[in-house]
Amino acid sequence: MAKQNIYDNETFFEGYKALRDKEVNANNLFEMPALFSLLPDLIGKRVLDLGCGFGEHCMEYIRRGADRVVGVDISEKMLEVAKEENSDPKITYLNMAMEDIGAIDEKFDVVISSLAMHYVEDFDGVVRNIYEKLTEGGVFIYSQESPMSTCYSGGSRWTTDEDGVKIHLNLSNYGREAEYSSEWFVDDVKRYHRMFSTIVNTLADTGFTIEKMIEPLPDDELLAKYPDYYDLFHRPDFLIVRVKKN
Amino acid sequence: MAKQNIYDNETFFEGYKALRDKEVNANNLFEMPALFSLLPDLIGKRVLDLGCGFGEHCMEYIRRGADRVVGVDISEKMLEVAKEENSDPKITYLNMAMEDIGAIDEKFDVVISSLAMHYVEDFDGVVRNIYEKLTEGGVFIYSQESPMSTCYSGGSRWTTDEDGVKIHLNLSNYGREAEYSSEWFVDDVKRYHRMFSTIVNTLADTGFTIEKMIEPLPDDELLAKYPDYYDLFHRPDFLIVRVKKN
Repeated sequence: MAKQNIYDNETFFEGYKALRDKEVNANNLFEMPALFSLLPDLIGKRVLDLGCGFGEHCMEYIRRGADRVVGVDISEKMLEVAKEENSDPKITYLNMAMEDIGAIDEKFDVVISSLAMHYVEDFDGVVRNIYEKLTEGGVFIYSQESPMSTCYSGGSRWTTDEDGVKIHLNLSNYGREAEYSSEWFVDDVKRYHRMFSTIVNTLADTGFTIEKMIEPLPDDELLAKYPDYYDLFHRPDFLIVRVKKN
Repeated sequence: MAKQNIYDNETFFEGYKALRDKEVNANNLFEMPALFSLLPDLIGKRVLDLGCGFGEHCMEYIRRGADRVVGVDISEKMLEVAKEENSDPKITYLNMAMEDIGAIDEKFDVVISSLAMHYVEDFDGVVRNIYEKLTEGGVFIYSQESPMSTCYSGGSRWTTDEDGVKIHLNLSNYGREAEYSSEWFVDDVKRYHRMFSTIVNTLADTGFTIEKMIEPLPDDELLAKYPDYYDLFHRPDFLIVRVKKN
């Protein structure tokens, strides 16, 4: 199955970097707090970060007391930045696809992946690899775009009123699990859509116990500050999942 | 919290009965096969059916070898039909709300509920009651309208093209967990909307292990026979869940 590496595309890379450099974005307002809220105590733990990108999360896990962090990313360009900006004696960056982590010859207490899973075609295979890499009692925590987003394949995503206010999401093809291409900085960024039920079944069938899911929404305070995020009440942007290996 | 009993409304009852009497409907094409596919071997088992309605399912569980079936429904009118049309020495029908099953002085190996949970306001309380009524290793299997449907509160549910073909679901308020009233035979049928994440968390927090979810879709054969059901590929009508008490 395909292993997608859009982040090594120059145009995509620059566009993405500019987005992440913005102080306020959906990632740091909603995805990151939700993901981190599901972290166990990391003191003395070995952590594997899949799709680590620039390595900011790896550094955060060190700050939280992790003993060792391995950051994996398919993009060489992302890892160059990671090594420059977020290096630490306890962090090892590996340039490989998530599909290939079977080759890493060690076990981890925690596997984390932030907004990378929807780029993976072989979800089932990656989940089984993660299960293998975890110690007994270890947890896997990951975030992805909402399954109500990953089936988007072009056209108007939202219906708005005459003032541009979003009235509803135009949801189609949620039941068609396939590869969806769309434009994000560059043409043809591929997302692999899976229904909620497929996500749950893949994790459960592998042997994981599903502990928690979060579909992050703004609270009143955040909404007062950034009113544009009211649209999350129509359709949250993210899904965050925590599962445990028994 | 409110315990809703729409089925004792005369108009609703007659409308619903006519719908169920139709040989082909979404219930018997999609919901029932999916629900039954998750059933364990029922031979010698004690089964509790929550929202049993006319009791057809109760009879089916007896046919599948169950030793004892207790059918619970809040509607006296539904149970009158059940006792007349689907009675068996091994079946007991109880006229009570799902919220009150704590009063039943016995345990069950299997608890099943077909398309009733979205009428329940206190999902958390009902799930805890079910957990209590189950033996160790017992399973709870239930179906509900899709969480992408239960947030519907009027207006156009679908956007269609000029030929009336459904192009997309108009999804709004998925993130607002509330009571939604809509018209179904009568005005003001109340559904209690919960996001996928809330369903998962309620079950997991109670102590259940989530084993399986199904969002039923038509296969090619069924689609060839009933082409109108293509719209399920935009948004499946149902969610079916199986969880286990450890």
